[in-house]
Amino acid sequence: MSPGGGALRLGPGGEFDRLRAIFASLGAAGRGLGDDCALIRIGTRTLALSIDLSLEGVHFRTDWLSFREIGWRATAAAFSDLAAEGATPLGVLVSLGVPGNRQRHSGNASPAVQIMSGVGAAARSVGAHLLGGDLVRSARYLVDACVLGVAQRPVRRSGARPGDGLWVTGRLGGAGLALAALRAGRHLAPAVRRRFARPVARIAAGRWLARRGARAMIDVSDGLAGEAGHLAAASGVRVELELERLPCWPGVTPLAAARSGEEYELLVAMPRAFGEAGARAFRRATGLPLTRIGACTAGHGVRTADNGRRITPPSGFDHFPGR
Amino acid sequence: MSPGGGALRLGPGGEFDRLRAIFASLGAAGRGLGDDCALIRIGTRTLALSIDLSLEGVHFRTDWLSFREIGWRATAAAFSDLAAEGATPLGVLVSLGVPGNRQRHSGNASPAVQIMSGVGAAARSVGAHLLGGDLVRSARYLVDACVLGVAQRPVRRSGARPGDGLWVTGRLGGAGLALAALRAGRHLAPAVRRRFARPVARIAAGRWLARRGARAMIDVSDGLAGEAGHLAAASGVRVELELERLPCWPGVTPLAAARSGEEYELLVAMPRAFGEAGARAFRRATGLPLTRIGACTAGHGVRTADNGRRITPPSGFDHFPGR
Repeated sequence: MSPGGGALRLGPGGEFDRLRAIFASLGAAGRGLGDDCALIRIGTRTLALSIDLSLEGVHFRTDWLSFREIGWRATAAAFSDLAAEGATPLGVLVSLGVPGNRQRHSGNASPAVQIMSGVGAAARSVGAHLLGGDLVRSARYLVDACVLGVAQRPVRRSGARPGDGLWVTGRLGGAGLALAALRAGRHLAPAVRRRFARPVARIAAGRWLARRGARAMIDVSDGLAGEAGHLAAASGVRVELELERLPCWPGVTPLAAARSGEEYELLVAMPRAFGEAGARAFRRATGLPLTRIGACTAGHGVRTADNGRRITPPSGFDHFPGR
Repeated sequence: MSPGGGALRLGPGGEFDRLRAIFASLGAAGRGLGDDCALIRIGTRTLALSIDLSLEGVHFRTDWLSFREIGWRATAAAFSDLAAEGATPLGVLVSLGVPGNRQRHSGNASPAVQIMSGVGAAARSVGAHLLGGDLVRSARYLVDACVLGVAQRPVRRSGARPGDGLWVTGRLGGAGLALAALRAGRHLAPAVRRRFARPVARIAAGRWLARRGARAMIDVSDGLAGEAGHLAAASGVRVELELERLPCWPGVTPLAAARSGEEYELLVAMPRAFGEAGARAFRRATGLPLTRIGACTAGHGVRTADNGRRITPPSGFDHFPGR
C-alpha cells in the first residue's frame, strides 16, 4: 500500500521550471513523481492512476467539437496514460465545470449531460466504469478526468537500455492535420476529424507490449519529439530517431508528424531481440502498425537524423489557442 | 474488482435535476452513483475514491485565503469524503489551473508552488501521499483533488434504520461565522479564521465510528439540514432533528449552525444501543465532542423541531460568491 511512484503532467513552456519548484516544496511526500501514472500497491495488486485536466480555450473549443466529443476526448486522453503504463482500466472520476448562463444547447440534453455521455462512452470503450464526479458552475467549460487501472507489469519511462529498439504504434500527424484545418476553417475529411475528435487510447496495445517485455513506454500526447526526450531523460539513455522511418498520415511530413501533439500513440523501447516478427504479431493482435523509428544508445538527449543526416530536433508540441 | 458503488457530488440548485439526466444518459456504467465516495474492490481490499473541484470565485477567493490555504482547503474537503466513508486515506491526485499572467506573488514561490505546498501539507496531515497531478494555465485558479483510500468497513449514506440515533461530530457554525465576517470585511478571531481556512477532515473520527458500527454517515459540507435530507433519502428513513441539541460555535444560533456549509463534520446514524457512554469513548479517542441531535424514524424526509415545536426546515447551504 506504499506509493511506488507518482505522476505529474505539466503543460509546455515555463511549467517545467515550476515542476522542479513544486517537487522541492513537497519534500518526501512527492517523491517518485514524473511518470504517466502514479503506481500504488493495494494488497497484491498494483494500481495505476492519472489525472488529466482539459480546459476550454486551451485543450478544446466548443465550436470545433460537440459536447459529447469534448467529454470523450478528455477521458480518452486520461486513459492514454494508463495505456502507456500497460495497465487495464477500471474506472474514471470526472469533475465538470459548466457555464450556468450559456444556452448553446437545443433540445433536452444539457451540455453537462452531453459531456458526461461522451465520458461514459469513452469509459465503456475501454471496459471501464464511471465511478464518480463533481459538477460546478464555471465561466468556461472544463473536464478533469482521474482514471484508475490495474497494472500487472507496469512499464515506466525509465527502463530503456542502450541497444533497445524504439518503436511507435499507429501513424502520426493526423491530429496535427485536423488542427491545422480547424484553425484555417477548412473542411476536414471524416477520418481526420475522427482522429482529432474521438481519439482512441491504445489500451490493448499497451498491455500487449507490456506482456512482451516493453522496457519503457510513454504516450506521445505532447508530440513524439518531446516525449522521446522525457523517455531518454528518465531512462538515462540517448534516443536516436530516424525521421524517415516515422509512420505518417497521408499528406504529413515526418517533421510535422514528430511535432504533432495529441496523437495518443505509444512510444516504446523494446529489447533488441524484438524485431519485425514481433511487430507483425503486434499487428495481428491489435490491428495497428508498430514501426521501429530508432534506437536507444549510451548517452543522453535526443538525436534526430533524416536519411542519415543529423538535423536539429523539432521542438515540442504547443497547445493551440489562448496560451 | 467490480465497482461497488459510485459518487457524484453536485453543486446546489438546479444541478440536482442535471444529476438525474446524467444518470439516465449513462445507463449501466453509472449505476450506484450517489454517495460520498466511489467504492471499488481491488483483490481483497475495498478502495474508496472521491473527486472535489474548487473554483476561484465559487469556492474560494484569493483575497480571503493564501494560496497555501487554498491548496489545503480544497484537499481537506476531498479527504472529508473519505472520512465520511470510514476510510483510511492513501493519496491524492490534483489538477491545478493557474493564471499565467497574474503576478500576485512575491518572492520565489509561485502561486502554483504555494497551492501545491498546501495540498502536500493537507495530505501529510492525514497520512496520505501526493501521487500525481496536472498543471494548466487558466483564466482563474482551480484546484481539483481526487483522493483515494482503503475502507475496511465502508459506511454508506444508505444504512440508517428507524430507531438509530443521529449524531454529529465537533461543533457547527464556525465556517459560516468566518464567511459572514469575510463578506462584511470584519476582523476574524484566529480560531474562526482557522476553522474556515484550514478545515480538518475527520478521518480518525470516521474510522472510529465505522469500527463502532456506524450504519450511515455523511459529511455536512453542504450544511447539516441538506445532508440530513440526503441521508434520509438514501436510507429510506425519516430524520428527526432536535435543533436545540445542535453543538454550536459560540455566537452561532442552532438555525444558523444547521445552515452553515463547509463545516466538514460528520453526521452519523448509530444503533440505538450507542449512547452517551459511546460518545464519551469517542471523545477520549478523538478529542472531539459527539452529540446526539436526533433520531431516525419510519417515514421519509427531514423533520426539524426546536424544543419540541416543529419548524420549517432550514434551506440548504449555498456557496458564496459568483453563483
